[in-house]
Amino acid sequence: MPSYTAPIKDTQFILHNVLKISEKAIPGYDELDADFTNAVLEEAGKISSEVLHPLNTVGDTEGCRLENGVVYTPTGFKAAFEQVKEGGWTGLDMPEQYGGQNMPYIMGTAVGEMFSAANQAFTMYQGLTHGAASAILAHGTDAQKDTYLPKMVSCEWTGTMNLTEPHCGTDLGLMRTKAEPQDDGSFKITGQKIFISSGDHDMADNIIHLVLAKIPGGPEGIKGVSLFIVPKFIVKDDGSLGDRNGVSVGKIEEKMGIHGNSTCVMNYDSATGYLLGSEHKGMRAMFTMMNEARLGVGMQGLAQAEAAYQNALEYAKDRLQGRDVTGVKNPDGPADPLIVHPDIRRNLMDQKSFAEGARAFILWGAQMIDQAHRAEDKDADGLISLLTPVIKGFLTDLGYDMTVQAQQIYGGHGYIEEWGMSQYTRDARIAMIYEGANGVQALDLVGRKLAQDGGKHVMAFFEMVKGFCKENGDISEAYSKEFIEPLKAASKDLQAAGMYFMQNGMTNPNNALSGSYDFMHMFGHVCLGLMWAEMAKAAQAELDAGSSDAAFYETKIATGRYYMARRLPATALHLSRIQTGGDTVMALDADQF
Amino acid sequence: MPSYTAPIKDTQFILHNVLKISEKAIPGYDELDADFTNAVLEEAGKISSEVLHPLNTVGDTEGCRLENGVVYTPTGFKAAFEQVKEGGWTGLDMPEQYGGQNMPYIMGTAVGEMFSAANQAFTMYQGLTHGAASAILAHGTDAQKDTYLPKMVSCEWTGTMNLTEPHCGTDLGLMRTKAEPQDDGSFKITGQKIFISSGDHDMADNIIHLVLAKIPGGPEGIKGVSLFIVPKFIVKDDGSLGDRNGVSVGKIEEKMGIHGNSTCVMNYDSATGYLLGSEHKGMRAMFTMMNEARLGVGMQGLAQAEAAYQNALEYAKDRLQGRDVTGVKNPDGPADPLIVHPDIRRNLMDQKSFAEGARAFILWGAQMIDQAHRAEDKDADGLISLLTPVIKGFLTDLGYDMTVQAQQIYGGHGYIEEWGMSQYTRDARIAMIYEGANGVQALDLVGRKLAQDGGKHVMAFFEMVKGFCKENGDISEAYSKEFIEPLKAASKDLQAAGMYFMQNGMTNPNNALSGSYDFMHMFGHVCLGLMWAEMAKAAQAELDAGSSDAAFYETKIATGRYYMARRLPATALHLSRIQTGGDTVMALDADQF
Repeated sequence: MPSYTAPIKDTQFILHNVLKISEKAIPGYDELDADFTNAVLEEAGKISSEVLHPLNTVGDTEGCRLENGVVYTPTGFKAAFEQVKEGGWTGLDMPEQYGGQNMPYIMGTAVGEMFSAANQAFTMYQGLTHGAASAILAHGTDAQKDTYLPKMVSCEWTGTMNLTEPHCGTDLGLMRTKAEPQDDGSFKITGQKIFISSGDHDMADNIIHLVLAKIPGGPEGIKGVSLFIVPKFIVKDDGSLGDRNGVSVGKIEEKMGIHGNSTCVMNYDSATGYLLGSEHKGMRAMFTMMNEARLGVGMQGLAQAEAAYQNALEYAKDRLQGRDVTGVKNPDGPADPLIVHPDIRRNLMDQKSFAEGARAFILWGAQMIDQAHRAEDKDADGLISLLTPVIKGFLTDLGYDMTVQAQQIYGGHGYIEEWGMSQYTRDARIAMIYEGANGVQALDLVGRKLAQDGGKHVMAFFEMVKGFCKENGDISEAYSKEFIEPLKAASKDLQAAGMYFMQNGMTNPNNALSGSYDFMHMFGHVCLGLMWAEMAKAAQAELDAGSSDAAFYETKIATGRYYMARRLPATALHLSRIQTGGDTVMALDADQF
Repeated sequence: MPSYTAPIKDTQFILHNVLKISEKAIPGYDELDADFTNAVLEEAGKISSEVLHPLNTVGDTEGCRLENGVVYTPTGFKAAFEQVKEGGWTGLDMPEQYGGQNMPYIMGTAVGEMFSAANQAFTMYQGLTHGAASAILAHGTDAQKDTYLPKMVSCEWTGTMNLTEPHCGTDLGLMRTKAEPQDDGSFKITGQKIFISSGDHDMADNIIHLVLAKIPGGPEGIKGVSLFIVPKFIVKDDGSLGDRNGVSVGKIEEKMGIHGNSTCVMNYDSATGYLLGSEHKGMRAMFTMMNEARLGVGMQGLAQAEAAYQNALEYAKDRLQGRDVTGVKNPDGPADPLIVHPDIRRNLMDQKSFAEGARAFILWGAQMIDQAHRAEDKDADGLISLLTPVIKGFLTDLGYDMTVQAQQIYGGHGYIEEWGMSQYTRDARIAMIYEGANGVQALDLVGRKLAQDGGKHVMAFFEMVKGFCKENGDISEAYSKEFIEPLKAASKDLQAAGMYFMQNGMTNPNNALSGSYDFMHMFGHVCLGLMWAEMAKAAQAELDAGSSDAAFYETKIATGRYYMARRLPATALHLSRIQTGGDTVMALDADQF
């Protein structure tokens, strides 16, 4: 059975030594001193390890079941959900007005990593509710907010997001679900939605479905899509629950992983729905949630990688197999532990340097969201908008790869379900797909975000990296050689790729789009390189100040050195692929394949 | 439901245009003219598509079950196994003397790819039997051969290989299973073996277990391991089946994939065993099988990638989603097919160029085995020994990655089990682990094979590539630029890596071993680059000769261009990682992690 320990010390290091959050001029950040955040993270860590993680295997093994139209979650989920609600975790970063704790989004993200690492399928019930509640918060009328938010913030009622239909996922303009206006201002929603996470279950009194649908007679395609609130049970004027609405579960999907979450086919049969936001502006309403939702999925990539890594590391220390070629390390035992072997080290260092770098990247991204929303900083908003597809695509791709590497450490034991390592890869796999498949993230990055606001945000990013390198170039010769120079080189590769797109994408967009996936990955590497340069700097500062915890900071720097030397140079390969353009990619006609 | 069509045309192209097998001076190859091999492949393709593949999902869904000590295979497996036996497929490359068809190993490999692609879990019952029979063929007494081989070649009896124990996988020197000598020359085998593929089932009258065990009083560690034949039912002198032996199934493992194969915990309780080969030479006996077994697993990596690719391609052509940015391609439909999008193309071209390159690599490797065994060519034996870990490690890693990419094309539909794409990744995952985990392959390559016979074989490899480049440098300017130059560059990277190991591995082996995994991958890329250069040359020759099938050969060359431009340059990244040495990899003490 795998175990999980929340990486509190590492998160604290990022929050306070790297991001220095309590010094930031963002409303609410002044309260985030190290003692406070530590107390929150300790509690979150405790519930993660003690309540959520023990149910992770249970959820995978039992899955959800549909009986007579009712969905039952795995044994123990309901009781655990009560504990999460009672602890106030569901409304951590929601407004006090609706019963939330009004903490910044960065704290929701730090805690979210822990919950997701402990039990991704479980945490999705709360995660989807958060997404739906955020949409109502941003686009609902006061009456809608008053009706739904208090119950959703507490997760007394949960939420879902209904976008996909059998014939359309990415291309939502093809949507067929209809919303027919009624005399009382409501709509009758009819259609089928698929892949609806947390679609139905037995852990809440009501479920608030947010459903995209088309009002007949509206504009064609994506411009005619509106968003509706469709509660499972109609909410009466006094707030009590009325009739069951015309929404039912068609089936629960059999999936590769996240079995503990009920992924449902939802059938809407003249269900009563209430317009959320404006008519035909449904996509805009969804998109305001997108940055957060995608950052949340990127965070899942990190979370599964971290959880898998922790277990792989333990196994590598415990399992005795073979001898260190440079000299026996465990002379009293029958063999040395796996961790003595260089290729096992390579594998573990890949995982460790990814997880710690990714954590910094995610928390930095969350800080940008706070800066954009709480401090109304348009530059931060532009930058996080640019980086969102990178966070989502890169961190979930690499997060998945890392769970595969963790599984590999176990040899055959990684392939059997008994040890739990298969579940990490099976659960992590979905994050590359949902909330916009990673190929779509790459397209969003290269096709939209690069040129947004005249390319202002990507230029700001390069200026920031350049500024960092300039400012910190003379910290020490070693730091310059090990961190600044590799970061400069990688950033230069990224710029060269952007330049290639500009020069060759105009004449033929395929020259840019064929390289979009490589670009997303190289951008991710540069961001992690920047994070590692920042972390090494912060760690060195602690060492220079005579920290009593030197081992922690030395380890941090050594891990960063690994990333800069062994991982970051991937940018050169991505650049070389991009610079071959679209010709070899598009050479064949479809029927030549 | 996925489908599968055997790639007969492509296999024929490799056998006859690239390898030109019927011109080779290898006993048995003179019979392999194009009509003959085509007839064999057509039949094999038919049984793969029509008999084996329809059972692939069944096997995954039902799995095997253990009831009162008896293992039952999934519905339909037994009848299909009868068809495979009746068709003579189980003894394709086995000696006529024992009922086989005596075809070269290359034909067994070409057919094996098809069977594995159609149904890996099913094909393993036959594959393990082949491995066990080969061991008896190589090391058995005449009496043992006469007793077991005829029944095993026909798969009336199947076989297993028993190496792993709960506490030892790679490090078999830690083995505890005991073999106590009896007065009649037999042994009593006692111990537990785990992860035994095809360990027990209901499709054969008897199961011949080959079991590694230690004879008490023998040398310590790996040098005291012997190999034993332990039949499920004792075979009487007249060849009929006698008493049930002391071997039983402890349980069937719950695994991530290959559910249709019964992976068993096997308990040996004073089971009667017969020494195979010499006392304490069990590992040597196993190792003579290793090249073939590992090539067979590499072939599985290709097979799953090919099957997944075929389905992803169909889906990309059928699924309508979004519009081509360079102009609408399907004006009468609601959207264009996925295949118009550059990033989908990149993904498909990755898969296509891998599968076709890997097929050439595998068949070339199989030819080397034939050359080594049938023509007793020591150089071929040395070269295939060098390339075996590359074939196993590189092709299963990349094969797995490609199934993940194929799954990605399906978006959410790739994650639900209904479409069958999850099974390809879950089944492909095991090939990176069994028959020596890929990290062990890398260690074998760098730690043993590079220096074997004074480095003779790796030097021969480089000479061969150099010779090819020199010989074909002036075919055309385009060919030189697109194929020869990239191959030269990649080969140079590989040589530089080898040089780095020589110069830095002596002082500290960690400098070499930290780069072993990268080296294995770069070696794989160079081999696939060589294969593509050969295939493009052969295709061009057909075009120059005015082939009536120009589209096939043009597609082949275009696919090769993609590999050379977009995939092969990965060697530079691997080299740069290798050249950073072992310091960053080994920087942390185990307790610093």
